[in-house]
Amino acid sequence: MNLIIIDPKEIKNNKATLSGRRGDHIRKIIKPRRGDTLKIGLINGPTGTGRVIACGRETTIEVRDLDDDAQAPDIIMITALPRPIMLRRVLAQAAAFGVKDLHLINSARVEKSFFSSSLVREEKWREFLVQGLEQGGRTRLPRVLVHKRFRPFVEDLLPGICGNAARRFLAHPASPPPPTDKNGRATVAAIGPEGGWTDFEVEKFLAARFTPISLGTTIMRVDWAVPALLATMETTLPLTLRPAAPLPG
Amino acid sequence: MNLIIIDPKEIKNNKATLSGRRGDHIRKIIKPRRGDTLKIGLINGPTGTGRVIACGRETTIEVRDLDDDAQAPDIIMITALPRPIMLRRVLAQAAAFGVKDLHLINSARVEKSFFSSSLVREEKWREFLVQGLEQGGRTRLPRVLVHKRFRPFVEDLLPGICGNAARRFLAHPASPPPPTDKNGRATVAAIGPEGGWTDFEVEKFLAARFTPISLGTTIMRVDWAVPALLATMETTLPLTLRPAAPLPG
Repeated sequence: MNLIIIDPKEIKNNKATLSGRRGDHIRKIIKPRRGDTLKIGLINGPTGTGRVIACGRETTIEVRDLDDDAQAPDIIMITALPRPIMLRRVLAQAAAFGVKDLHLINSARVEKSFFSSSLVREEKWREFLVQGLEQGGRTRLPRVLVHKRFRPFVEDLLPGICGNAARRFLAHPASPPPPTDKNGRATVAAIGPEGGWTDFEVEKFLAARFTPISLGTTIMRVDWAVPALLATMETTLPLTLRPAAPLPG
Repeated sequence: MNLIIIDPKEIKNNKATLSGRRGDHIRKIIKPRRGDTLKIGLINGPTGTGRVIACGRETTIEVRDLDDDAQAPDIIMITALPRPIMLRRVLAQAAAFGVKDLHLINSARVEKSFFSSSLVREEKWREFLVQGLEQGGRTRLPRVLVHKRFRPFVEDLLPGICGNAARRFLAHPASPPPPTDKNGRATVAAIGPEGGWTDFEVEKFLAARFTPISLGTTIMRVDWAVPALLATMETTLPLTLRPAAPLPG
């Protein structure tokens, strides 16, 4: 928990009382004393500090110094729907890396049963997204959209989703590495299922002006490919508006 | 299991009988028939095909067409010893990405108890390394070395470990992105513990001529940072001798 994520609805009179998982983490791991400050972030809002005004089974903080200038990458991710246990990690990763919209799509190699898992049917994303925000130190909750049919998605929706994003990348083995492009910012990145996209699916993405890129020669699990792709994007392309701070010292 | 990993000792008269985890995977997931071929790799040796000559609870294959020209990246990885559950994943990732030597070191933010886990005390790496080889489609088993004291490691051993590797990278927040360097090949990459290296530790790596690089603005878990770092290395730097094949079609 690198950032304590608070729903703005939890704040009353500039104070929030944290119990449950967050309360336990604060009590057992951070162990603050009254007057200490904690790094907090409001969902879809600013980051700031919370001054501890009461601690015990629950922790009550006073919200302070909210700073709204954090920038998240302008990146849309498309992923073939992974199996539920993997999907939880992918949701957390997407949130941690600041993905704006996550499109979970069908593909020939996606098992039908993945769509009928309770995680997907009931759209129980939020818990895993919040865990990702806590890990990655971000506050923007990605939008998650599920598309049960591949063809209507790529043919009818994809052009609108891509908008005028010049950078559209399809992770695909044996392609060139990602470019180090200094133009544009909005990026759409697509990651296939275990076993990869079929030729038909690759053709559809190419028709939508996606560039195939390789993440190296290693065949990755989806939950390795997501951080590999997103970190590669961020280190080779300008995705965020705010430059990284210089190395201290 | 993208590659069925076989210990050369298991091969008798050019045949190997696979049971247990591999046998189950072949029977339940791959479901081959007699005469079918499977992609196999010999530990620390070539890849090739195995022709199925008997299948049932166990699968017997005949080893064929061994091809010894696979190249693994010339990369040495240094990681602050993670907690056991994370270490299993890091071992698999290191093997999958073709890391040659993995040095697990102490750091101020490594809990002492991590060194006394049975995984570390008994050096039970092999199972997780083999899982990584199966996932990544590689055959070279990384060497795993444990160093219980930080200072003797960086002061006495690190110069010899780095040898004449010109590329020495320390993953550290708020640093510049990795260079896209076309010179040299041998690379040494160091990843810190959850919570990061201390200033003292960073200084020691800098003294050993490591360059701090950033993997972006996201605070990553160790098992996200490893694929992020290794994929970034491979896509920005020439790590392997064999170029990627062109995109089919």
